[in-house]
Amino acid sequence: MTAAGSANLQTGTTQKTVGQYLFDCLQLEGITEIFGVAGDYNFTLLDTLERYKGIRFMSGRNELNSGYAADGYARVKGISALITTFGVGELSACNAIAGANSEHVPIIHIVGAPPDKDQKQHKLMHHTLMDGDFDVFHKVYKQITAYTAVLAPENAEIEIPAAIRIAKEKKKPVYLVVADDLVTMPIITRSEPIPPRPMSNLKTLQAATEHARQLLGRAHRPVILVDVKTMRFDLVTAVRQLADAMNVPVATMMFGKGAFDETHPNYIGMYEGSFGSSEVQTAVENADCVIAVGMVWADNNTANFTAKLNPLVTINIQPDMVKVAEAEYPNVFAADMLLAVQNIGYIGQGLAGKTTFPYDQITGSAGDPLTAANYYPRFQKMLKEGDIVVAETGTFYNGMAQVRLPRNATYIAQGGWEAIGYATPSAYGANVAAPDRRVLLFTGDGSLQLTAQEISTMLYYECKPIIFILNNDGYTIEKYLNVKTENQQYNKIPRWSYTKLPEVFGGDAFAVTVQTYGELDQAIIQAERECAGRLCIIEMIAADPMDAPENMRRMRNYLEMQEKQRSQN
Amino acid sequence: MTAAGSANLQTGTTQKTVGQYLFDCLQLEGITEIFGVAGDYNFTLLDTLERYKGIRFMSGRNELNSGYAADGYARVKGISALITTFGVGELSACNAIAGANSEHVPIIHIVGAPPDKDQKQHKLMHHTLMDGDFDVFHKVYKQITAYTAVLAPENAEIEIPAAIRIAKEKKKPVYLVVADDLVTMPIITRSEPIPPRPMSNLKTLQAATEHARQLLGRAHRPVILVDVKTMRFDLVTAVRQLADAMNVPVATMMFGKGAFDETHPNYIGMYEGSFGSSEVQTAVENADCVIAVGMVWADNNTANFTAKLNPLVTINIQPDMVKVAEAEYPNVFAADMLLAVQNIGYIGQGLAGKTTFPYDQITGSAGDPLTAANYYPRFQKMLKEGDIVVAETGTFYNGMAQVRLPRNATYIAQGGWEAIGYATPSAYGANVAAPDRRVLLFTGDGSLQLTAQEISTMLYYECKPIIFILNNDGYTIEKYLNVKTENQQYNKIPRWSYTKLPEVFGGDAFAVTVQTYGELDQAIIQAERECAGRLCIIEMIAADPMDAPENMRRMRNYLEMQEKQRSQN
Ligand SMILES: Cc1ncc(C[n+]2csc(CCOP(=O)(O)OP(=O)(O)O)c2C)c(N)n1
Ligand SMILES: Cc1ncc(C[n+]2csc(CCOP(=O)(O)OP(=O)(O)O)c2C)c(N)n1
Repeated sequence: MTAAGSANLQTGTTQKTVGQYLFDCLQLEGITEIFGVAGDYNFTLLDTLERYKGIRFMSGRNELNSGYAADGYARVKGISALITTFGVGELSACNAIAGANSEHVPIIHIVGAPPDKDQKQHKLMHHTLMDGDFDVFHKVYKQITAYTAVLAPENAEIEIPAAIRIAKEKKKPVYLVVADDLVTMPIITRSEPIPPRPMSNLKTLQAATEHARQLLGRAHRPVILVDVKTMRFDLVTAVRQLADAMNVPVATMMFGKGAFDETHPNYIGMYEGSFGSSEVQTAVENADCVIAVGMVWADNNTANFTAKLNPLVTINIQPDMVKVAEAEYPNVFAADMLLAVQNIGYIGQGLAGKTTFPYDQITGSAGDPLTAANYYPRFQKMLKEGDIVVAETGTFYNGMAQVRLPRNATYIAQGGWEAIGYATPSAYGANVAAPDRRVLLFTGDGSLQLTAQEISTMLYYECKPIIFILNNDGYTIEKYLNVKTENQQYNKIPRWSYTKLPEVFGGDAFAVTVQTYGELDQAIIQAERECAGRLCIIEMIAADPMDAPENMRRMRNYLEMQEKQRSQN
Repeated sequence: MTAAGSANLQTGTTQKTVGQYLFDCLQLEGITEIFGVAGDYNFTLLDTLERYKGIRFMSGRNELNSGYAADGYARVKGISALITTFGVGELSACNAIAGANSEHVPIIHIVGAPPDKDQKQHKLMHHTLMDGDFDVFHKVYKQITAYTAVLAPENAEIEIPAAIRIAKEKKKPVYLVVADDLVTMPIITRSEPIPPRPMSNLKTLQAATEHARQLLGRAHRPVILVDVKTMRFDLVTAVRQLADAMNVPVATMMFGKGAFDETHPNYIGMYEGSFGSSEVQTAVENADCVIAVGMVWADNNTANFTAKLNPLVTINIQPDMVKVAEAEYPNVFAADMLLAVQNIGYIGQGLAGKTTFPYDQITGSAGDPLTAANYYPRFQKMLKEGDIVVAETGTFYNGMAQVRLPRNATYIAQGGWEAIGYATPSAYGANVAAPDRRVLLFTGDGSLQLTAQEISTMLYYECKPIIFILNNDGYTIEKYLNVKTENQQYNKIPRWSYTKLPEVFGGDAFAVTVQTYGELDQAIIQAERECAGRLCIIEMIAADPMDAPENMRRMRNYLEMQEKQRSQN
């Protein structure tokens, strides 16, 4: 049900203020927390919110981190909201919002602006470019959001539902700015017909299905390939049903990790072009029909485009269009197409043998120094049903991709946008969204330094994630990526004492540094007990700063080979 | 001399790469350090820089902080540069760059972008919105900078000098984006005539001078009022000479603090409308001629527009125009006008009596709890010639405004943009710009939490500022600003142990918490010894979280009165 259609909103609408109406609409979407930072231009928004029942304001350490937290929250709850102040606040969050755009995460970004009367007089107000122009930052946000509006009592009832509808439809952030003095004004009742929910064009759907049937008709080795938009566009269940019905091998892409149950009997693992498992590569590249769902054909999702799908045998199902072989079928919605494909009735033979995964076997012994080869299996072992796993861009992101997730796990990472520093605040947001689920954060040392203060906010609000910090003394992934020079100064970082962070932040935590496999093992056992009561930090000292999982090594080899070829030309 | 005119640049230009040429141009401007954060799209920029003699890359903890550091550096050295990576990096720095725009600080923001060949094929690359569009973030930056260009070997020799010229002329940030694979390509020699330096229209200058002469001819009580653009547009010496020659009272505006020598015999203090000293208010508002230099008539610069200048007696000297009474004289440059006014030959009688300043007298005794009334005089006493004083937005900003600065002090604050968190990284940048000068940072607890990790960068690069942290348990200034509600949750912050920060960041520091005047006094004495060898942190526990300097209390009274009037209507 959309906001404007609700009974709650239709009674006494004329007395409701812009702020109250806004929060009513957000509450209808299931939002019970809003992230952000106070500032004098959002006082009326926050004052309204403090008196509003059912939504709590979560005050963050800065706006970028609050934006990331909103992103993590939306990945768990479906949608989120962020409140910042004009100029200084909103512009601090640009990277978080653009990231949500890139990654298909709906965030309602609400900005408190200078009083309308001052704007009308073009006064020079603080937090502006001192040119009397109050539309500059709105223009910035037009570039990186799916919808923007300047709210007023006259348009609130139209613009707020429109923004929320578009955020949900496109799975993108939207931007609403409202002058501080208009927030407490009663809205003027307006109602516009709610645009009909977009639906598949049935003729096109039929044609696409027919085409898919032909491909499948000839197929002996079809596979399903699941990618990120499956998660973002609420297609997880539909894809699972398709896999159950078809009984064919299912692989996921890097961005799509978490979109398919990795304990499913048909799951064969991650398809990472030439950087990943060669069994998966063979299965996918030799398939005579690939049903690809929610695919984003990006560099980092395709192992630098070493992934190769034969377009002629591919059924590419996108949220609102389908491509079968070379033919495009616009206005066909994924949910409809998935069902249609299921109804074709293809039934495969499941998997030939039992699949093994790279980290199925515990390999470490107590005294071993920490290496990718021994700690990822330990992570896999500790994961439990319902866990929320947050993996930061960097070495951990690559390794965690290979760790087999338990059922009903939520996996959070920025595969495409890849802003480092994202994971820590995002884990906080996820924790707020699901206080009863365990949150495991895997972050590199370099990344953590960008946004470390959000651990303080976690402590403040009594979030209790288990935080793994990979201390490998610098930007290891960047050392892997740069094949032209060595020992770059710019990849060095200060050495922090990560376990002392909670002391600074004034919270109770279990914090320990581990150097060997045995220490890690013990620390995990203890953290699993402790995490009911307090936040846990496990700092892992990598034996070798250049230690990395297999897929990163393969990437390095590939880049070195490319560079060699380039320099020979 | 502009970059393109230099001998260094004219030899062997054809062999120089885009990156080398860029750094040559920056070096000619006196830039010896560039701030930023590495990312794979700026590897070629940073690799070139690591091998480049005479400019060092300063790796920051995140991009926003690096942008702030560049801002602080530019305020000391006149100009600065920042290198970020595409999307994730550059968008993290939006707030810093918009702030530099608002505050007239020239920063050359250089962004490393995906390889040109990938852009041309519209490949989906990481750090993009995954739509094949590589111009989105460039469009964002068009809104908040004075100039932007997409660099290539063909245009480097034109665009780089143009961008630098505009940054210097307008005192604004500019934006240059360059594809990673073009950085190492040789530039193609192009030369365009360098546009002539803009000069005053002599006729208009004469007319403006004539008009000013009339005003001064009738004047008995003229004053000079100095504001922020005096500093930014290199007019400090010209204004001082004017004051010396005219021998009339001189006041500064809030934003303009630091633009005029506060030990000058003609200096009467800060003009803060109804919130500041009534003596200064009387002198300025009763003046029969006000020579206002570099004025920005903004809310926070005019004590919520309670400052009142009579336009009919005002000579308003702006960087590139003059307004005398109601008449505008475009294309008159401030330096020319200041000299012309000086040549009018008006000679005043100096000041009637000796001026006293709010914090001239030490008032605290050893056991006293810390209050604005006792600690600001102590700060004033400790300041030394040549100090760089950085004041964060918040309570400290208001109090420090009233502290009399010694000679040749540089004062850094964001009076207009007012992004909290700015001051700490900015102090780091200032320290890098002037390693031999003492840097004193005054920050609130709330503000520090936004960007605290840049203290780590200071330790890493062995910067040794003295950092005062006002721990008043929350966002005090915001409690003052909100007269509608009380005890807001959103103005609360976590309690940190600030003196433990250096331990986490792994550096040697002198760090102490003080609660009484006597402890503060001792801590300052010790810090003055220690700061030669290491960074110093003095955490000040405010006796009363609502303690504040006089001007903030006056502001509060004014806001309460306004609110009362509003609610009575
Ligand atoms: C906001 C942002 N700035 C810069 C980068 C470029 N970058 C990608 S990975 C990385 C280093 C990550 O280092 P760390 O977290 O220590 O990971 P590890 O060393 O384990 O690979 C950097 C700087 C980025 N992705 N995002
Ligand atoms: C980036 C940014 N976010 C939010 C604000 C709104 N704001 C202005 S002052 C302030 C509180 C400052 O608190 P603190 O540094 O503790 O200063 P004090 O308590 O001493 O006044 C806030 C949140 C801002 N100016 N900039």
